[in-house]
Amino acid sequence: MTHAPMPGAERLAEPLRSRWSPSIFDPAHDLSAEEIRTLLEAARWAPSLGNSQPWRFVVAPRGSAAHAAFVPHLSRGNSGWVPRASLVLVAGCEVVEVKSPDYARYDLGQAAAHVTLQARAMGLHAHQFAGFDHEAAAVALGVPDHVRLMSGIAVGARGPADDVPERDREREQRPRERRPLAELTDPARW
Amino acid sequence: MTHAPMPGAERLAEPLRSRWSPSIFDPAHDLSAEEIRTLLEAARWAPSLGNSQPWRFVVAPRGSAAHAAFVPHLSRGNSGWVPRASLVLVAGCEVVEVKSPDYARYDLGQAAAHVTLQARAMGLHAHQFAGFDHEAAAVALGVPDHVRLMSGIAVGARGPADDVPERDREREQRPRERRPLAELTDPARW
Repeated sequence: MTHAPMPGAERLAEPLRSRWSPSIFDPAHDLSAEEIRTLLEAARWAPSLGNSQPWRFVVAPRGSAAHAAFVPHLSRGNSGWVPRASLVLVAGCEVVEVKSPDYARYDLGQAAAHVTLQARAMGLHAHQFAGFDHEAAAVALGVPDHVRLMSGIAVGARGPADDVPERDREREQRPRERRPLAELTDPARW
Repeated sequence: MTHAPMPGAERLAEPLRSRWSPSIFDPAHDLSAEEIRTLLEAARWAPSLGNSQPWRFVVAPRGSAAHAAFVPHLSRGNSGWVPRASLVLVAGCEVVEVKSPDYARYDLGQAAAHVTLQARAMGLHAHQFAGFDHEAAAVALGVPDHVRLMSGIAVGARGPADDVPERDREREQRPRERRPLAELTDPARW
């Protein structure tokens, strides 16, 4: 099964062309401090409303204290595959000292997309997820009230499929589909 | 003056490395229908929460009816530079029939980042903006109530600086700055 590029995406430039979200990471793969730094620079240089830079990240490489504090709060569906990734960036946004929390979320999404695409350009894969106990994770990670956790970004190398639960293998094999372009661009069809 | 890459961004892969937001576009440059289609495919294949794909775009190339309907609603600060771009994608998100409007905004941000980076990979530039009368623009463009406009994405080729107002030249010369990485990754400093 081909995960990328899908029809329509063949025309895209790398790293967009080959981006997709695997669920089987190599649990023996580690990222260097330099690689993690590069992923964070991708987020740092993303654009934002009035250069507000509302994005915040808890950096949790596998084996770190932050990783150990975060993992127990994953949803059941994410508790198998996420911990096999080399790194989780737990991503939140400033929602109090900003012009608009709506744009803080929009801009955090931009920063997360930048991390995800930079990872692909480095030969890695990233898979974003929202399924974790956000309030419990915020307490465990020392996230203050004015920052709202939104997502995790799991980053790593793709691993072998033979050693993972059926659930995670199945998750990877789901067809990648999108609505037709015309549905996205015709207000009469919204 | 160098606009990109800035310190820290030299390590990024293209098209992230050279991305920035010019304000001087070439008013004689047009995008082909194929190029516009490619930009939209970049948005279409962005990731989203549960593949909800909440992003919506009004496609407004310079000279189109949509462009003429949108331009009068630009803020004064954007009314000079935006119309010189070859294309405006007026971007909104579904906020009713989604699991969470917060994630609709996050995912629209991801799709906007994908468009912006794909533009850069095509030798073009993109500059996102929020300064327009969102309600009046929604009426003018036939955007239904369940879609909330968030931003415009101006895309085009960079133009000569000699023929534009001082305000737009000055806008382009603003220093590009970001907070230090440590401020983004240390919850004690948030």
